[in-house]
Amino acid sequence: MDRTATPVAPSRGALRPLGLDEVQITGGFWAQRQAVNATASLGHIEHWMEREGWIGNFDAAAAGTSAGRRAGREFSDSEVYKLLEAMAWEVGRTDDEVLDARFRAIVGRVGAAQEPDGYLNTNFGRPGQRPRYSDLEWGHELYCYGHLFQAAVARARTRPDADDGLLGIALRAADHVVETFGPGGVASVCGHPEVEPALVELGRTTARRYVEQAALFVERRGTGTLADVGLGRAYYQDDVPVRDATVLRGHAVRANYLAAGAVDVAVETADEGLLAALTTQWENTVARRTYVTGGQGSQHEGESFGEDFVLPADRAYSETCAGVGSVMFSWRLLLAQGLPRYADLIERTLYNVVATSPSHEGTAYYYTNTLHQRVPGTVPPADAPSPRASSSLRAPWFAVSCCPPNVARTLASLAAYVATTDDDGLQLHQYAPARIRTRLADGRRVELDVETDYPREGVVRATVVSAEDRPWTLTLRVPAWARGATLRTPDAAQPAPPGTVSVRRRFAAGDVVELHLPMHPRISHPDPRIDAVRGCVAVERGPEVLCLESVDLAGHADVSGVRLDVGAGLREVDGRVLATLRTTAPADVAWPYGSAHPEQPVTRTDVPLTAYHDWANRGPSTMRVWLPVA
Amino acid sequence: MDRTATPVAPSRGALRPLGLDEVQITGGFWAQRQAVNATASLGHIEHWMEREGWIGNFDAAAAGTSAGRRAGREFSDSEVYKLLEAMAWEVGRTDDEVLDARFRAIVGRVGAAQEPDGYLNTNFGRPGQRPRYSDLEWGHELYCYGHLFQAAVARARTRPDADDGLLGIALRAADHVVETFGPGGVASVCGHPEVEPALVELGRTTARRYVEQAALFVERRGTGTLADVGLGRAYYQDDVPVRDATVLRGHAVRANYLAAGAVDVAVETADEGLLAALTTQWENTVARRTYVTGGQGSQHEGESFGEDFVLPADRAYSETCAGVGSVMFSWRLLLAQGLPRYADLIERTLYNVVATSPSHEGTAYYYTNTLHQRVPGTVPPADAPSPRASSSLRAPWFAVSCCPPNVARTLASLAAYVATTDDDGLQLHQYAPARIRTRLADGRRVELDVETDYPREGVVRATVVSAEDRPWTLTLRVPAWARGATLRTPDAAQPAPPGTVSVRRRFAAGDVVELHLPMHPRISHPDPRIDAVRGCVAVERGPEVLCLESVDLAGHADVSGVRLDVGAGLREVDGRVLATLRTTAPADVAWPYGSAHPEQPVTRTDVPLTAYHDWANRGPSTMRVWLPVA
Repeated sequence: MDRTATPVAPSRGALRPLGLDEVQITGGFWAQRQAVNATASLGHIEHWMEREGWIGNFDAAAAGTSAGRRAGREFSDSEVYKLLEAMAWEVGRTDDEVLDARFRAIVGRVGAAQEPDGYLNTNFGRPGQRPRYSDLEWGHELYCYGHLFQAAVARARTRPDADDGLLGIALRAADHVVETFGPGGVASVCGHPEVEPALVELGRTTARRYVEQAALFVERRGTGTLADVGLGRAYYQDDVPVRDATVLRGHAVRANYLAAGAVDVAVETADEGLLAALTTQWENTVARRTYVTGGQGSQHEGESFGEDFVLPADRAYSETCAGVGSVMFSWRLLLAQGLPRYADLIERTLYNVVATSPSHEGTAYYYTNTLHQRVPGTVPPADAPSPRASSSLRAPWFAVSCCPPNVARTLASLAAYVATTDDDGLQLHQYAPARIRTRLADGRRVELDVETDYPREGVVRATVVSAEDRPWTLTLRVPAWARGATLRTPDAAQPAPPGTVSVRRRFAAGDVVELHLPMHPRISHPDPRIDAVRGCVAVERGPEVLCLESVDLAGHADVSGVRLDVGAGLREVDGRVLATLRTTAPADVAWPYGSAHPEQPVTRTDVPLTAYHDWANRGPSTMRVWLPVA
Repeated sequence: MDRTATPVAPSRGALRPLGLDEVQITGGFWAQRQAVNATASLGHIEHWMEREGWIGNFDAAAAGTSAGRRAGREFSDSEVYKLLEAMAWEVGRTDDEVLDARFRAIVGRVGAAQEPDGYLNTNFGRPGQRPRYSDLEWGHELYCYGHLFQAAVARARTRPDADDGLLGIALRAADHVVETFGPGGVASVCGHPEVEPALVELGRTTARRYVEQAALFVERRGTGTLADVGLGRAYYQDDVPVRDATVLRGHAVRANYLAAGAVDVAVETADEGLLAALTTQWENTVARRTYVTGGQGSQHEGESFGEDFVLPADRAYSETCAGVGSVMFSWRLLLAQGLPRYADLIERTLYNVVATSPSHEGTAYYYTNTLHQRVPGTVPPADAPSPRASSSLRAPWFAVSCCPPNVARTLASLAAYVATTDDDGLQLHQYAPARIRTRLADGRRVELDVETDYPREGVVRATVVSAEDRPWTLTLRVPAWARGATLRTPDAAQPAPPGTVSVRRRFAAGDVVELHLPMHPRISHPDPRIDAVRGCVAVERGPEVLCLESVDLAGHADVSGVRLDVGAGLREVDGRVLATLRTTAPADVAWPYGSAHPEQPVTRTDVPLTAYHDWANRGPSTMRVWLPVA
């Protein structure tokens, strides 16, 4: 049983993940966000969950007073579990004993609501509530277990000797699930996938039977065991068996969670056919259904993927949690196959979806992440939940508030995605100042310190800390966008084309390997089949997608009349990217279709672009990622 | 009390509508559709409403057996009323006695379900059902009354002496509404506007108090009397008072029905401020939130208007019923103000939304009307309702099946929109072969026959039938697109610029006035703020928007790689418009954003374009209205 302190610990695969005890992010972009997460977000989330009664639901269930008075949506238990998972990783990361006590207090309240047979859900099965499992389509009971299991796994792997009882709660619930939905039981699945990856992980940490239950759920999915309730069975991926599907579809969070769990099952059962199907799904989804930000799920209706190349900027849904799900899916494929393309997408999604959601203060969030804001967002209420997909600035809370704890658990465990090992060495996937102390399977010590100001600068310096008599291989990812990168080793400098670059040697303490990534801003053109952004380009710099915000325009003019002068090039001044814009004043007409609309350039100005993840931190503005070309 | 056999009969305004006894469509495009409507659609609709139990709901309500077994959605009563309205117009149009008997039979079943106090709805208030008016947001009770009233008005105006009892049913229900929601009663509105225009019309035909009730509903709207239930109060226009709003927003059908009723109220109460507000709403909606087809409501979520210029082609919702509602709104403004722009939009919407919905056979419908079909539609089931917004070919029925009877009532009453009179003459708004026999207010006879092959040809020939000693004025609309039109009178030929052109004379029997409209295909460019179709053009011919269907491409290639060679011009051959296309073969790439994608033209071919309303009548295909420019 693997108890590496990491969210995903496969028993086989190309790469082995490292635990939070083996790798820490020590500074820079992500350490700053981890600090905000620890000092502001976790408390903010706990406060709102108390205030909204989502934690109190467990007290009421334990006291038998739930009937007719339960707070929140049907899946609110899961938000509490996501918070527990985030707290567990954070305690594992920092040994924060105050946080540990808060964690234990919530676990106690959760555990009190568990029924003798292991069932645990505050929304079903008690007097005045609907019967257990009477609404698999929308009830989210198994989905909630999934997040419970992930919380328990996080705790078991970071504090294996903790006496808080969370693992026991999870195992009793998991046994109940196997009892109820196992062979001969209810032959169906949950409307919201999530229990699948969670059961595998629980199985990896405890007992194989949970993996088998996950495999059963994956095999059942797509066979139409759920009713067609309005949005169609594709909404919850019950339209096509997982191994027959060629692309992600339907609800984007559901699709990614299911895909992640199916990779887990494929890996644990050595099911190469299933893994190949998921690889194809990933490839097609990335090539045809993903925003330049890495965001997935373009449609508001059903929070879902559109058809291929339906990627509107101005109604981009790009749910934050779909970004988290996409990282989960890609990470599992990376561990299984070792290909850098997965880490490329993870990096893109982390910088441009996961980092975009929370405000700088860590106490307000985007649930959706549009790529084009046409009207200045409104300031959401500070003291009430906001609609999840409203066109507002980041909001402190939502009636459906999965993004805050989902971002929190991702940030708290982020170090786990920095590096891996294999039999012969270590692979760096994400670039951040980091401390890495691990051993390869044969006992060779691999100890590195990484220094970098990435993504502000493109130099990544890895210094070997300990001497080891035997050679090993250090591999660094060169992002697909990084044309012209170079690697400097103690011996030489060499070109580092996109993909990976490796150095194998008998490293001595103090040896330095430096990757130089080209960080000049670059212009990206969309596939011509993405009709929504025809005639536009995006500006990117390193892993960051940039955008134009109206607060940077003279007179805070809105962004509808801007045209990028591509010929004028992009410049960097004082760490900001400047673009030359020609601004036109669109004429109002009674009917917007007719003879060609001549555009009179009114002004020509240099305007700074902003990292997309930073937008809307300076008050209401209009914004666009895709800039029409002059 | 006005009993002109027409859907809208204001007591004042710039223009006076004609009744179905005064104007008939005698041939051509619309007569053919009226015939299909009469011979196929009405029976098809009645069959499905019986089959689905929507008419049977009234039997069950009368028998007291509704509890727990009612069929259909909460608004299905209204569909039966829309069918009754369509039948009433059709009986008025053609004196079809067999249809009249079917009409009477349904009226009898409806009437049996009415309660002693006038309440009539099969979904509320009986044992096992929720209480009356306990769900104004979603219950649709007043909405259903609205369609009941419109059916009763249609009957009262076409068969004023009928003894079927429908008017009595409507008046009892209307009295109950006034009793319940009048001054001192429930101070709220219905989540779905519709009762407002219906009450005004019922008032115009019977008693003023119904107009006053409509005025009360219009004034209450926008004051937040409805709960904010998820989609926001803009969804049902309860966000801003009608007289303060500047543009239509929210659910597009609701928005148009409310606007129509508000115009009615403004006209009957001589409320110029309210009328001015609605005029502004119309102008802004047309300039910024309307598709080139006239379609309105661009968003699937909430079937709603988007922000200004959010008009995606590939996810155009453009609900058929929103088109019907837009015609209702525009027609009322036309009667009030006489401006040709309203008839322009009506024409555009009739040809490109209302005519698009039904199949050639009149037994299948589009509920939504996309402007870009990316994957070939599937053939919907013949024996089961389809999802309303599915990407299929036209479907025989939907669980929400408002479009079939809404189109039917529009087609059956279509002659009413052809012409109007004022104190000095007659105005032709829509061009179809027609027989017009009316008198002006002072008794002057105006009798015209219109001959035309419009829109196939651009010549509209109006022949005066009867001699009259006194002069009068014949006014013809020149559509905004018709640059270079000419008018030929008995005396001369003259240019006819867009707007209206008038001839005032002492017409003699046999006098001919001919309008020559230029019908060459033309290229329309979108306002540059409509980001979704940047770099594309649409091709129009007369009032028809054209499209490219893949069934017309070699090998039925899909339409994603086509580029229009604008320089090559458009040609007409054998009545079809030919465009020169360069077809490219888009290359599949792993990541769809990067360096410019060079497009290699693979073929250059002349391809026929199809009238948009005709598309998808030749089996599954991909389609696009907006053609990227080469």
